[in-house]
Amino acid sequence: MRKLLNEELKRLTIESFKSAVKLPVVVILDNVRSLNNIGSVFRSSDAFRVEAIYLCGITARPPHKDIHKTALGATESVRWVYFENTLDAVGELKSDGYEIFAIEQTEESIMLEEMEISGGKKYALIFGHEMRGVDQDVVDAAEKSIEIPQFGTKHSLNISVSAGVVLWEFYRKIGGVINP
Amino acid sequence: MRKLLNEELKRLTIESFKSAVKLPVVVILDNVRSLNNIGSVFRSSDAFRVEAIYLCGITARPPHKDIHKTALGATESVRWVYFENTLDAVGELKSDGYEIFAIEQTEESIMLEEMEISGGKKYALIFGHEMRGVDQDVVDAAEKSIEIPQFGTKHSLNISVSAGVVLWEFYRKIGGVINP
Repeated sequence: MRKLLNEELKRLTIESFKSAVKLPVVVILDNVRSLNNIGSVFRSSDAFRVEAIYLCGITARPPHKDIHKTALGATESVRWVYFENTLDAVGELKSDGYEIFAIEQTEESIMLEEMEISGGKKYALIFGHEMRGVDQDVVDAAEKSIEIPQFGTKHSLNISVSAGVVLWEFYRKIGGVINP
Repeated sequence: MRKLLNEELKRLTIESFKSAVKLPVVVILDNVRSLNNIGSVFRSSDAFRVEAIYLCGITARPPHKDIHKTALGATESVRWVYFENTLDAVGELKSDGYEIFAIEQTEESIMLEEMEISGGKKYALIFGHEMRGVDQDVVDAAEKSIEIPQFGTKHSLNISVSAGVVLWEFYRKIGGVINP
């Protein structure tokens, strides 16, 4: 099983990424503290070709050398926007017709494998602060909360891992749009 | 949608984790450089209750404060072993009946969503170095290579994200064992 060379992977150029069909998903980062996590979310968003990342509140913005360390250039391909207030980002996306999912453990959360999504719709996924999660007022503004089921001793996954897992689940369900 | 408090999540204690039924999966880290990634893999392995993590080669071992920063205690719940040579870890697991999957992009790799796994078997998943991936001689020792399909400009996902995504896919396929 010979490993493929980077050039054999036939990835997109930054220009072709920008004009390519996207997974109909916007990632919202609600006060994410770690530059490492922000960079890693950019990299996963590039891989699953999401529409945009909305960086909110204390979430740092590129260019930043510590974001670059994990993003490795994905801040050049994936579109991003900054909002001081996460609720403004949610409001804008709602009025643009996006269905809003908070990735959070709530009284009403739906387990990720049971999440129902459909091909014709657009989705925005909110990931929150490393310790506090998504703020309660932002959860209240979302239509649904989605939970990644967990079976160990810790309360949550790392936020960049959560984003990767949820984006993978979206790809699994509606990935035909980017992989026809 | 009220957010749940940590105590409402009813996570396992370290003692109950140790005796609980596990996902029949061992994670092998083949020369993983970043302490942040190692810690994050511990945390995901705790969440999906894997059997063990085999730390190989230059992969650092707990206790280490920079592993702790992302593992947040998961080094206490998840069993781990150190091997100087990754091939020795693979050899031991093979003779114990594990099927070995290298997570790597090769001429023969199987896309993650098409990976076939079955309930009665045991699996070992090899994740490699941040830049070099899984070494070719280790890939050669594996039975299959599994690839996470990607559609952007970058060549790979962060290794802790890859581990989270692959463990989630295992949970999706054979999670009934830990979530009856």
